[in-house]
Amino acid sequence: MKLAELTWMDVEVLSRDVVVLIPTGSLEQHGPHLPLFTDSLIATAVAQGVEQAIPEQVLLTPTLWLGASGHHLKFPGSLSADFDTYMGAIGSVVQSLLPHGFRRFYVLNGHGGNTSPNDMAMRKLKALYPEGTFAHSGYFAFCEQAIAHTLEGPLKGMRHACEAEASLMLHLHPNLVRKEKLRDDGLIAEPPVKGPVHHFDEITEQGSFGYATFASAEKGRTIFEAAVAGATEELRTIATGYVLRGLEPAQESTR
Amino acid sequence: MKLAELTWMDVEVLSRDVVVLIPTGSLEQHGPHLPLFTDSLIATAVAQGVEQAIPEQVLLTPTLWLGASGHHLKFPGSLSADFDTYMGAIGSVVQSLLPHGFRRFYVLNGHGGNTSPNDMAMRKLKALYPEGTFAHSGYFAFCEQAIAHTLEGPLKGMRHACEAEASLMLHLHPNLVRKEKLRDDGLIAEPPVKGPVHHFDEITEQGSFGYATFASAEKGRTIFEAAVAGATEELRTIATGYVLRGLEPAQESTR
Amino acid sequence: MKLAELTWMDVEVLSRDVVVLIPTGSLEQHGPHLPLFTDSLIATAVAQGVEQAIPEQVLLTPTLWLGASGHHLKFPGSLSADFDTYMGAIGSVVQSLLPHGFRRFYVLNGHGGNTSPNDMAMRKLKALYPEGTFAHSGYFAFCEQAIAHTLEGPLKGMRHACEAEASLMLHLHPNLVRKEKLRDDGLIAEPPVKGPVHHFDEITEQGSFGYATFASAEKGRTIFEAAVAGATEELRTIATGYVLRGLEPAQESTR
Amino acid sequence: MKLAELTWMDVEVLSRDVVVLIPTGSLEQHGPHLPLFTDSLIATAVAQGVEQAIPEQVLLTPTLWLGASGHHLKFPGSLSADFDTYMGAIGSVVQSLLPHGFRRFYVLNGHGGNTSPNDMAMRKLKALYPEGTFAHSGYFAFCEQAIAHTLEGPLKGMRHACEAEASLMLHLHPNLVRKEKLRDDGLIAEPPVKGPVHHFDEITEQGSFGYATFASAEKGRTIFEAAVAGATEELRTIATGYVLRGLEPAQESTR
Amino acid sequence: MKLAELTWMDVEVLSRDVVVLIPTGSLEQHGPHLPLFTDSLIATAVAQGVEQAIPEQVLLTPTLWLGASGHHLKFPGSLSADFDTYMGAIGSVVQSLLPHGFRRFYVLNGHGGNTSPNDMAMRKLKALYPEGTFAHSGYFAFCEQAIAHTLEGPLKGMRHACEAEASLMLHLHPNLVRKEKLRDDGLIAEPPVKGPVHHFDEITEQGSFGYATFASAEKGRTIFEAAVAGATEELRTIATGYVLRGLEPAQESTR
Amino acid sequence: MKLAELTWMDVEVLSRDVVVLIPTGSLEQHGPHLPLFTDSLIATAVAQGVEQAIPEQVLLTPTLWLGASGHHLKFPGSLSADFDTYMGAIGSVVQSLLPHGFRRFYVLNGHGGNTSPNDMAMRKLKALYPEGTFAHSGYFAFCEQAIAHTLEGPLKGMRHACEAEASLMLHLHPNLVRKEKLRDDGLIAEPPVKGPVHHFDEITEQGSFGYATFASAEKGRTIFEAAVAGATEELRTIATGYVLRGLEPAQESTR
Repeated sequence: MKLAELTWMDVEVLSRDVVVLIPTGSLEQHGPHLPLFTDSLIATAVAQGVEQAIPEQVLLTPTLWLGASGHHLKFPGSLSADFDTYMGAIGSVVQSLLPHGFRRFYVLNGHGGNTSPNDMAMRKLKALYPEGTFAHSGYFAFCEQAIAHTLEGPLKGMRHACEAEASLMLHLHPNLVRKEKLRDDGLIAEPPVKGPVHHFDEITEQGSFGYATFASAEKGRTIFEAAVAGATEELRTIATGYVLRGLEPAQESTR
Repeated sequence: MKLAELTWMDVEVLSRDVVVLIPTGSLEQHGPHLPLFTDSLIATAVAQGVEQAIPEQVLLTPTLWLGASGHHLKFPGSLSADFDTYMGAIGSVVQSLLPHGFRRFYVLNGHGGNTSPNDMAMRKLKALYPEGTFAHSGYFAFCEQAIAHTLEGPLKGMRHACEAEASLMLHLHPNLVRKEKLRDDGLIAEPPVKGPVHHFDEITEQGSFGYATFASAEKGRTIFEAAVAGATEELRTIATGYVLRGLEPAQESTR
Repeated sequence: MKLAELTWMDVEVLSRDVVVLIPTGSLEQHGPHLPLFTDSLIATAVAQGVEQAIPEQVLLTPTLWLGASGHHLKFPGSLSADFDTYMGAIGSVVQSLLPHGFRRFYVLNGHGGNTSPNDMAMRKLKALYPEGTFAHSGYFAFCEQAIAHTLEGPLKGMRHACEAEASLMLHLHPNLVRKEKLRDDGLIAEPPVKGPVHHFDEITEQGSFGYATFASAEKGRTIFEAAVAGATEELRTIATGYVLRGLEPAQESTR
Repeated sequence: MKLAELTWMDVEVLSRDVVVLIPTGSLEQHGPHLPLFTDSLIATAVAQGVEQAIPEQVLLTPTLWLGASGHHLKFPGSLSADFDTYMGAIGSVVQSLLPHGFRRFYVLNGHGGNTSPNDMAMRKLKALYPEGTFAHSGYFAFCEQAIAHTLEGPLKGMRHACEAEASLMLHLHPNLVRKEKLRDDGLIAEPPVKGPVHHFDEITEQGSFGYATFASAEKGRTIFEAAVAGATEELRTIATGYVLRGLEPAQESTR
Repeated sequence: MKLAELTWMDVEVLSRDVVVLIPTGSLEQHGPHLPLFTDSLIATAVAQGVEQAIPEQVLLTPTLWLGASGHHLKFPGSLSADFDTYMGAIGSVVQSLLPHGFRRFYVLNGHGGNTSPNDMAMRKLKALYPEGTFAHSGYFAFCEQAIAHTLEGPLKGMRHACEAEASLMLHLHPNLVRKEKLRDDGLIAEPPVKGPVHHFDEITEQGSFGYATFASAEKGRTIFEAAVAGATEELRTIATGYVLRGLEPAQESTR
Repeated sequence: MKLAELTWMDVEVLSRDVVVLIPTGSLEQHGPHLPLFTDSLIATAVAQGVEQAIPEQVLLTPTLWLGASGHHLKFPGSLSADFDTYMGAIGSVVQSLLPHGFRRFYVLNGHGGNTSPNDMAMRKLKALYPEGTFAHSGYFAFCEQAIAHTLEGPLKGMRHACEAEASLMLHLHPNLVRKEKLRDDGLIAEPPVKGPVHHFDEITEQGSFGYATFASAEKGRTIFEAAVAGATEELRTIATGYVLRGLEPAQESTR
């Protein structure tokens, strides 16, 4: 169900087993070829796909579109929530619903920069309500294999305004893609380092990272459907329950 | 222009005279007859109307839909941002754009409960950037006369899920209105008091306040068009400039 | 009763039906003719008038004189609390008394810039203690008619260091008024705009707004007495209880 | 000068060498014999005494009367600011005046529980404005000798609602003292411990600590005059400057 | 160099090219077999190994041992910093040194629960000082291959108080390991889910996760040396500089 | 017992009468002769001495070494926690243990700048858990007499990197003392003032205050042993209980 379209009386009679699904995105630069709202549009579309697939098990909120995008702020038009505001929005949504008996919450994320604050937001809530289920994942975690199999450029994983994202947008919102401006971009540290936090004006020429010139709507459809299918399976599992079982016996090892 | 659909390169070349238009709404109970997203839907529609009227003078952001709705939380499905989060979202939007030279910001509000935090958010920003223009108003301030002239029920002003709001929704999103559930509601203090802050579970029976049974799409259109016209005039004035002139001379008084 | 003069043993035996009355003011520029403490002095005087009228029903605290006056800070001598501090003071007073059974609180305000944070402070408290009564109003809301009838200058409502405020000060503290410096001042936007937040150095020449040259002690007495009478009636109503009744029947309308 | 009574034009022409004098007090239980406002009344009186002595060198603000009194909250009527609010008030006063060139600030305190937050508030300000002078002291630090010489009860220092405070109140506000209720009170740890933070409901029977039955107005006058004289000397020194000189030479020691 | 042992005069003459190395750990339950300080002890040892290897290029601070361990708090003795405190400590260290010209900072982490707040802390600092280098990584990221090759139990990666951690402790602090209590533990979701945030009392029987019974000091030495070698290489790279180069040409792809 | 070395199962069976002992220090300049970690090293040593003396009655945590040292930040290498972070660390430690039944907490401090925030941290905790024991003291409070008797320089009390601190370091960590750089330093206000908060770059030439040239390891041992003995007695008293008795009767006075 879509929370936005319900009345409070509709909500009152819902099963409390539903998973509240909260999409998170961003409004930030996506190179010369993709619109600022790319992450929010994709996360919203995947979440809506899940809601369509299992409407009785999901209570979909509108997308929290104002992401944690400080690393893109040098590019005009990018908007970034400070971290407290970003996490506060998630917490506010959850804490509004908890007193009414909802106890399962899932943040479905479309922007890598949101991952850490999503993790912290859900851990804070878990600390306050240890009995509740608080979960989060990027939609991209549900289509890693589809991405690896589908992409043709040298990079086989999700980056930023890359072959995968551009393909998704060509599938979902082709009119918003500047096809003539699709561009390969991205700078890599040599020798490689693991730790430094970089801003995108440091590590790209025009804001994207990856091989967007390889993008196609067809690839986008493949990736999108995989994301929806994977996220649907995850949400259904949480709505219907999962159990915690022990490790496989150590004696099965080579000891 | 719609910020969400632009690329950063589009934003880079915009005039810095544009007014950044930030709609604010809520997701909160609106009685048995209107959907939870009512305030956000109306504020978005008015803001889009303004953007369509003067696209060169307005830079429209997506709607900050998570409002300050603590007084509705007893009704399930209502979501409320804590005040810091609510104000932080406005501040984050503005502070992302200020370094790129944008200096005129207008919060167009669709929810009465946001008025105080909108005021404080804009005053905080004005204190930090005294040269900037920071403005806010409910869309309803631009159609007070149209409301007073149009409504037929005993109340001639905007309340909550009332004749005016229900009319606006019948005009804008008729499929989301539960027409069979339109209902008059609202409790008034006797003897009257000015000061107390009330929750809506205290002052209504089912969440709305006013005479929604009088609502019609036609009235909604009248009110909506007045709101768009008035807000457009306000935004145009700010985009093109206004001057500060002195009081009318006191000697014109009866002294 | 005046809390400041009581001992804890006096407070222990008070009725918990009393309304705790918290005056709020400011210390900020009031033009060349009124002292910085004007708002606090007037709010204190009105509150004391209420306490004298119904001492058994009111527990009067000292005045929270440090207001939210950021829009006056360009004028030297003005002091402004940041919003969190301002609201924290109100919250601290209330939360100190709630555990002892007091449950009715009224902020009586003398400074327009405090209105939004007063609203938010009381809403925060109401969210924490939904059974309590948390109210706030400017004293000027109780004497609007008296002001409209009394003022002789072109403006018929309360502004800042205006005919009404100067009259009140001439009545209450004539020795603190610089009578030779009474001055008409104030700049108005043309064409008019509703939204912008202005600082007083932008919209005045010397800090006041209105027709202070029309002020007189006699007008001040009229306004003051109306304010005390109105506020007393409000506080008495809350101390002795009011009920919530339904809307007048819609069928009485023209439907 | 008294800031409250000045206009902004008066402040504009003041010397920036003046010391801004900020009295801090409390509204908290003072046993069965002294009013809740005791600390604020005494701190205000001492500060006013200083202002009268050297009006050209002091800019006196109204008293920040809402103290950090959490350890008294079990006694009804006591009010306590949370620490952030308490320190925020001091910071707000100072930060309002710094942009206008005032650079010397002195918090004169009347309540022991304010000492730590006063210290932290001034250290925070010093970190932000290392060139400024930020000082704080209890008024009691200026009359320690007078107290030691004057008191007749077994305790020779300032406690709470004790012989010294009761004497000061008998001198300053005799009508607010419940002379028939003057009482000796206070519980001491055996064996003694240095570290524990105690609440006053733990360490007293009725809220005071010390030998209030020994109090007299005459002692109060002696202590008061010493406090004013000492504080005046301190403020004058800061207003007119002091130098930092080296330690006495070590070779003068017994090495 | 070890900051703790230097004087300020020593620091004054240091090269500002050094990387400030800040180890982060925890004090939290590590099953029945490892001490609460395990993470801090290992992170400290790795960081000291780096400092010994390239003392001229590293300025090592003491370990920030109070980690973000909310998911372990049900086990007595575990300590957890709230997130603001945790991130504030890192920020405080960095912001103390930045004014003195140090501009390269590396958080070397020993506790998985710190990863998200480390990321956010460094991103906040990067936003404030875009020219600086702010990096963070778990020590375990430098020895993933060594772990995969060395472990003999069914799990080939780092978990919690697992074969790898127990081995490291047997190598570094054998006297603190309760060898007779080494235990395999850990519960896994079936069907698997990606998103939920779990507390360790939900997903273990006695607090550890993995096959600690396979641990040995020899494996610990192998893993430790790999971690030190990898972290040393990373720090040396940052101290001596790395460049950002473009992606490999897309035409080398299969397009 | 040393918390760091225990497992959670060890903690589970501990008596809840133990006093949790939390040493606090700093990493800040200590003149040209003492290392930055001086305060932390001394506080740790004293706390360990207490733990060795009464291991069954004390649960010793690692040292919170990041102190409130803003007044030393002009000297490179000094690190300072902002106050919220500093107090948050103490609060986090305590609030992690309270749910497991520990109810006695003692902060043993080695740095004067921590005194005010220690006081506020413990008062905040006491307000939340009035039944608990929350205590704090500098270790120097337990050896004031030993210091006064032992020191030979003109100053007979503890200052900063002074005769006493240098002596303690010569006793505890002689290899970290730059003996050839021991130096007398410190500037005193003339005429004296009580209130101003000073930074150490204002009141010293090279960072220390006092007569370090008089220091000796022998004095250090005397002072250290007194500190350990006094703190041990304090902790033992709290672990085994103390009672609150009334004031000595006033009639025994000279009235």
